Amino acid sequence: MTTRPDTPLLDRVHKPEDLKQLSDAQLSRLAHELRLETISAVSETGGHLGAGLGVVELTVALHAVFNAPRDKLIWDVGHQAYPHKILTGRRDRIRTLRQKDGLSGFTKRSESVFDPFGTAHSSTSISAALGFAVARDLGGQCEGGLGDAVAVIGDGAMSAGMAYEAMNNAGALNRRLIVILNDNDMSIAPPVGAMSTYLSQLYAGESFQELRSAALGAFSLLPKPVQLGAERAREIFKSVTVGGTLFEQLGFNYIGPIDGHDMDQLLPVLRMVQERATGPVLIHAVTKKGKGFAPAENSKDKWHATAKFDVATGKQRKAVSNAPTYTSVFGQTLVELAAEDDRIVAVTAAMPEGTGLSLFETRYPSRCFDVAIAEQHAVTFSAALAAGGMKPFCALYSTFLQRGYDQIVHDVAIQGLPVRFPIDRAGLVGADGATHAGAFDIAFMTNLPGMVVMAAADEAELKHMTVTAAAYDDGPIAFRYPRGEGVGVDLPESSEVLEIGKGRMIQEGARVALLSFGTRLEEVQKASEALSAKGITPTIADARFAKPLDKELILTLAQNHEVLITIEEGAVGGFGSHVAQLLAEEAIFDTGLKFRSMVLPDTFINQSTPADMYAQAELNAEHIEAKVLDVLGVAQIGSKSA
Amino acid sequence: MTTRPDTPLLDRVHKPEDLKQLSDAQLSRLAHELRLETISAVSETGGHLGAGLGVVELTVALHAVFNAPRDKLIWDVGHQAYPHKILTGRRDRIRTLRQKDGLSGFTKRSESVFDPFGTAHSSTSISAALGFAVARDLGGQCEGGLGDAVAVIGDGAMSAGMAYEAMNNAGALNRRLIVILNDNDMSIAPPVGAMSTYLSQLYAGESFQELRSAALGAFSLLPKPVQLGAERAREIFKSVTVGGTLFEQLGFNYIGPIDGHDMDQLLPVLRMVQERATGPVLIHAVTKKGKGFAPAENSKDKWHATAKFDVATGKQRKAVSNAPTYTSVFGQTLVELAAEDDRIVAVTAAMPEGTGLSLFETRYPSRCFDVAIAEQHAVTFSAALAAGGMKPFCALYSTFLQRGYDQIVHDVAIQGLPVRFPIDRAGLVGADGATHAGAFDIAFMTNLPGMVVMAAADEAELKHMTVTAAAYDDGPIAFRYPRGEGVGVDLPESSEVLEIGKGRMIQEGARVALLSFGTRLEEVQKASEALSAKGITPTIADARFAKPLDKELILTLAQNHEVLITIEEGAVGGFGSHVAQLLAEEAIFDTGLKFRSMVLPDTFINQSTPADMYAQAELNAEHIEAKVLDVLGVAQIGSKSA
Repeated sequence: MTTRPDTPLLDRVHKPEDLKQLSDAQLSRLAHELRLETISAVSETGGHLGAGLGVVELTVALHAVFNAPRDKLIWDVGHQAYPHKILTGRRDRIRTLRQKDGLSGFTKRSESVFDPFGTAHSSTSISAALGFAVARDLGGQCEGGLGDAVAVIGDGAMSAGMAYEAMNNAGALNRRLIVILNDNDMSIAPPVGAMSTYLSQLYAGESFQELRSAALGAFSLLPKPVQLGAERAREIFKSVTVGGTLFEQLGFNYIGPIDGHDMDQLLPVLRMVQERATGPVLIHAVTKKGKGFAPAENSKDKWHATAKFDVATGKQRKAVSNAPTYTSVFGQTLVELAAEDDRIVAVTAAMPEGTGLSLFETRYPSRCFDVAIAEQHAVTFSAALAAGGMKPFCALYSTFLQRGYDQIVHDVAIQGLPVRFPIDRAGLVGADGATHAGAFDIAFMTNLPGMVVMAAADEAELKHMTVTAAAYDDGPIAFRYPRGEGVGVDLPESSEVLEIGKGRMIQEGARVALLSFGTRLEEVQKASEALSAKGITPTIADARFAKPLDKELILTLAQNHEVLITIEEGAVGGFGSHVAQLLAEEAIFDTGLKFRSMVLPDTFINQSTPADMYAQAELNAEHIEAKVLDVLGVAQIGSKSA
Repeated sequence: MTTRPDTPLLDRVHKPEDLKQLSDAQLSRLAHELRLETISAVSETGGHLGAGLGVVELTVALHAVFNAPRDKLIWDVGHQAYPHKILTGRRDRIRTLRQKDGLSGFTKRSESVFDPFGTAHSSTSISAALGFAVARDLGGQCEGGLGDAVAVIGDGAMSAGMAYEAMNNAGALNRRLIVILNDNDMSIAPPVGAMSTYLSQLYAGESFQELRSAALGAFSLLPKPVQLGAERAREIFKSVTVGGTLFEQLGFNYIGPIDGHDMDQLLPVLRMVQERATGPVLIHAVTKKGKGFAPAENSKDKWHATAKFDVATGKQRKAVSNAPTYTSVFGQTLVELAAEDDRIVAVTAAMPEGTGLSLFETRYPSRCFDVAIAEQHAVTFSAALAAGGMKPFCALYSTFLQRGYDQIVHDVAIQGLPVRFPIDRAGLVGADGATHAGAFDIAFMTNLPGMVVMAAADEAELKHMTVTAAAYDDGPIAFRYPRGEGVGVDLPESSEVLEIGKGRMIQEGARVALLSFGTRLEEVQKASEALSAKGITPTIADARFAKPLDKELILTLAQNHEVLITIEEGAVGGFGSHVAQLLAEEAIFDTGLKFRSMVLPDTFINQSTPADMYAQAELNAEHIEAKVLDVLGVAQIGSKSA
């Protein structure tokens, strides 16, 4: 345990209202203390640090000027909201961040009235703020009341189409709405895309001084034409009409860039906006990710996310790894394949590290495309790469693949284009909680005509599936695998191209067949051991494919066993549902089959360890064992004499 | 049959190459003939007309200057591509547009090598063009070869986030890529949003002349700095750095606006771009939707889509309607509800007419939000409206709801916010074909925890469900209904708030239970009549809810019948799968149940009439009847003595 920092001012703050009593100088000191407290808390819990440190001053200034919870502060993504949580009555729980029953690592409506809209996926905040602004203007009522709507959004998040859609709508609706562009020139990785370049130019170009001084004085940029001289009015009109910043072109008043760590700039600008804004305003604040904590400031990823660490040295206490992660096995295999096949290209939506593509990016920079936080584009771009004869691997997390769903249907599946979808973070993911669960991809991919859908049971299987996807050129193919380490099996030297639509037998048994799809196989095997000790040795098979189904395998299992249970790490509608459809069509149910499909439950499961989350989901070995016993128990009444 | 127009020049054009032999003056005449031919064809087939007429000159100019199929022309949405189809070897089939086995109403890879990338949903073209450009630069090979990539995208389509994502990526990648902004100030409806306003200003503002003349001379705007004087270079540099058009800010060279109907502007600009472009170029062409056909030009929607019509008079031959459309029943009911409840607001993504909201928009303009083609934003905006105490109806077509899937999961379902989703165009839709089928929504909505999912069996049911959705405030609720007319039942004067999760018995029978979800109920009833004539009177129930399931009803049906068949207008993974999951969990299969789930087949079904498409899907009365007989036939072997 590190020594807690000395925070005399912060100790007096129990709610945002308390900030109203503080002088500007005190607010600056409070920011300093809030930074120390944030560092101290995250050193104990691990979590997102860099982003929170970058908005400490902004957090204090926003709460000092605006009136939450009446004013709705919406933190895009929400991983930068730890300082906000500390100031809004959650300091006593801040050291439970991202733990079971603890504070969420994102903002969350059920956690506090000061979190008016939950966030976690990027780029939703402007849409949400606009919704509150419109509800306010229509007389809507909600907890805490409805005042100003303020979205705080990073420059990385600005690359997503939905942020643009929201600005386009906000600019047209012309409601009072405040967007703070927190420009730290970083998202998780350094941001990419033309917008990012543009933002850099906004504060590097020759008009920087002029805009900056305008922002500091700032009155002239706000829509009070009566105060403006005729010439200035014409200038502004002209800039809004055919020039100006991109934000002005979309109908916003643009103020900035300002120094997001300088309370002497933040406070007057926010006060002025609060006093005078009539339409949508964008305040461009330049900040530094990891600000004020040297180890973070100096690291490449600015400590986007960290393990527990020592505050004095910055040394992170990383857990010892026992096996390579699925992510790294995919990344390594793809690099090996790419050496032999120059048609292989990779696409990531701002997550080269998270998807394991950074090695590929280093080795084959001209064949790796980080398209920014832009899943819709990533999918269609990949479809056209495939149409142009390349072999695109469009690597996304399961939860983010949801953003490209229409493009998967419309541009990939309907056209039958051979896009490869490595789906990382499939199933329950641990500390990131429900918002990041990969629960639905089996269902939403498997019902698409022509889509091949695989799930890896272990890291060796993932290697085979990556190779299989590279070799398969007849249409789209997806393969899913979880967050974290593999189970520790040996990785094969040379990989096998799997036969499409064929599962594998793991163990021959009797009475009960367990048909696993994905990494629950390990739990199935544990359950089998426990059952064997009780005299029941189930047959175990690994389906490998949810589409096309291994009809022969499934029918054989059904015909030769009293009980057939499918197990998967996904919601109903996926693998088990397709198996049930097959069994129904083949008239297997007509004469009786003790069929069960173990899937994720019909609830969103809060953050915990993955193992604990799977315990809540009743998908661990003990639950598989219990399910078998339960089904057989019912069976034993009827078949005791057999 | 109208008299075919006289088209001597067009008659000599069999492939785009033939245009290379024509003088500029001949190309202008060709455009005139192509317009006449397009009008003539659509007068016989019906279909999209306004958009195609707007790009006749552009189509001729593109094919005259570029070299398809080596150069990839990608028509965004594709409903403006009829003239393109006529010039690319499909003139002989142009009068089969949108008919069974005829030409698609959109571009389609399987139809022609001149359609390198199928389109139908909006705003995919820049992503696709960029994919081809990158594949070209990486040495990719595909049919026809890989040359220039040219996207033609409307100003309406520019409002979608994915167009922005693609531009952001294209600007950064800096590949040679050509985007033609076809600015007709219309999408289906007049476009909305700040971008639309901005585009109007681009050609209405004071810099119009300067930009326009620059475009006509145009050389100076292209990246050949050696040709530029120092001052001009600095100007351009400055505009790219901190000013310039929004497109320049995103890394494009911007040329325009030019008159998209003037071949004397189009041809030199396209030739110059083809000769000199090195990076991404955007050509802003101003066109008129419906150009050259007075009835279209003068109508409000510019004949976006038309029935067959008389060329001389413009009189459309609309089919006689027998019953109100589902769309209008929803729209009318919502207006009635809104009169009583001022918390009701409506959100549409650029389709007030298509979703039936135009009446609501007229009556309650301040409570109706057309957010442009922006489904992602539409959903999250609606979620925040709900959080702010309003009752949002977020009305989208099933196929477009796919674009907002992540937002439904992340912003609506996880937060349990009471957003109402009227899902229009559910099931197979007819002439728009596979790209517009509403096949997947039951599956992808029903597996979301806390989501209520209903389907209307007829227009009276739709009225009840609209009322039910308005009354339900405990979480998100969706209700789906098909394109087209209702079945002709009487609409109830006052509507009923349905009990959540309760189905209804339609007919008591024996041996066989038919459990319908949605408008197949009519076919189920027809099948029942045919079966009754054969001595089998099935029980019929309307599930009304796919979530929550009416467990009591389903278990009663299962326990009291030898056969249980579910019928729905959706892919596997939806209603039938949830019923199967319930039956499995309840151990109903253990002792045998002849269960079948009739769903859409695992193929994409091409355009035809909805009835014919459902025949192909084997979901019409005859197929339901045959399924029952088949299942009973198998059964009769075992149970003949019973």
